[in-house]
Amino acid sequence: MDPSRPESIPDPAVRRISLYLRQLEAFSRKDRRTVSSKQLGESLSLTDAQVRKDLAYFGQFGHPGIGYNVDELITKLRQALGTDKTWNVLLVGAGNLGRALMAYRGFESKGFKLVAVFDGDASKIGKQAGPHLIQPLTELGRTTRAQSIRVAIVAVPAEAAQDVADQLVEAGIRGILNFAPVSLNVPASVTVNSVDLAVQMEQISFAVSLSSIGQPP
Amino acid sequence: MDPSRPESIPDPAVRRISLYLRQLEAFSRKDRRTVSSKQLGESLSLTDAQVRKDLAYFGQFGHPGIGYNVDELITKLRQALGTDKTWNVLLVGAGNLGRALMAYRGFESKGFKLVAVFDGDASKIGKQAGPHLIQPLTELGRTTRAQSIRVAIVAVPAEAAQDVADQLVEAGIRGILNFAPVSLNVPASVTVNSVDLAVQMEQISFAVSLSSIGQPP
Repeated sequence: MDPSRPESIPDPAVRRISLYLRQLEAFSRKDRRTVSSKQLGESLSLTDAQVRKDLAYFGQFGHPGIGYNVDELITKLRQALGTDKTWNVLLVGAGNLGRALMAYRGFESKGFKLVAVFDGDASKIGKQAGPHLIQPLTELGRTTRAQSIRVAIVAVPAEAAQDVADQLVEAGIRGILNFAPVSLNVPASVTVNSVDLAVQMEQISFAVSLSSIGQPP
Repeated sequence: MDPSRPESIPDPAVRRISLYLRQLEAFSRKDRRTVSSKQLGESLSLTDAQVRKDLAYFGQFGHPGIGYNVDELITKLRQALGTDKTWNVLLVGAGNLGRALMAYRGFESKGFKLVAVFDGDASKIGKQAGPHLIQPLTELGRTTRAQSIRVAIVAVPAEAAQDVADQLVEAGIRGILNFAPVSLNVPASVTVNSVDLAVQMEQISFAVSLSSIGQPP
């Protein structure tokens, strides 16, 4: 068994691995060479025990009396997350949000390269979206195979999202980042992460409403 | 005590309230009048018991033998989330992602109205960003008071985000939707929800990498 690819890591631990990586990259930019589990946890409000437990899922990285080597740990965590290589990604939905995501530079710096753009609206097909020609959904299978794409971003209206998801699964997509405000039904072999921006805002309005009770407006 | 504003609702329940609301809105668009807890839970892969428990935090809405009245429940849940009124929202960061979020129509339809845009880059001040003139951060306090803004969206680079958050808190902002890939330290009276798009993608690449082990490439 490959120790960098364990089978039973809890989701919250995987999420924290991303946060550790973000923090380690910040340390590396400041030319820091080593870090302790306490220092790594501090800025994320986590205990050193939690940090050590999470990292232990992926192997033994610490050096007694020294801590973790920053660049070595970055390399190992990227391997663990699968971002030591570049992933070709496709986008479905060339509307406002889709174009915004195309312009967002935070994906490519983390190993995700947008290589194809699709839209279900016939009037958009063949038009330019940044460096990409917008393709019809009928090309999904061919493009996915030709460019070895396994991950897709869905930025279509709620009512179109399940149909798009079905076509993505059919085309061989294995992971979907979904911005449509709807739950997608996919086979267990396909991973969906949903980002519903309105839900995020509602959580904030709920908390702010609560904390304001009894206070002057 | 106002039963629509309870103090001790777990975060996951609040998040599910948003999902119920999304589902109820879909039912309402299809002119559906009533729904059972089972039907409401089904599309979200939740049990009817979970649905009833979550809704019970906010009051007794069900009608024996009939289920929930769709439009009545929508009204009650919007009141509970604080989105029965419109929230004025400000945006800090008029870069690619910020402009994308400005163009995103999903916020306003849920009760969040973007009324002011700020940027720390002096060269952007006074320029147009959609319908808004970009303001300097020195105007935060004045604008926040003048327009009764309590919620902010942060779409600035990681290295600027904490400083921006400090200024937002100082200006009276009580809730922050943070897109900068960094943890923000704020007082307990301020709510932060972070959306790190690269973290979301890393979770997907991790899952897809895992599920591909032993499979042909």
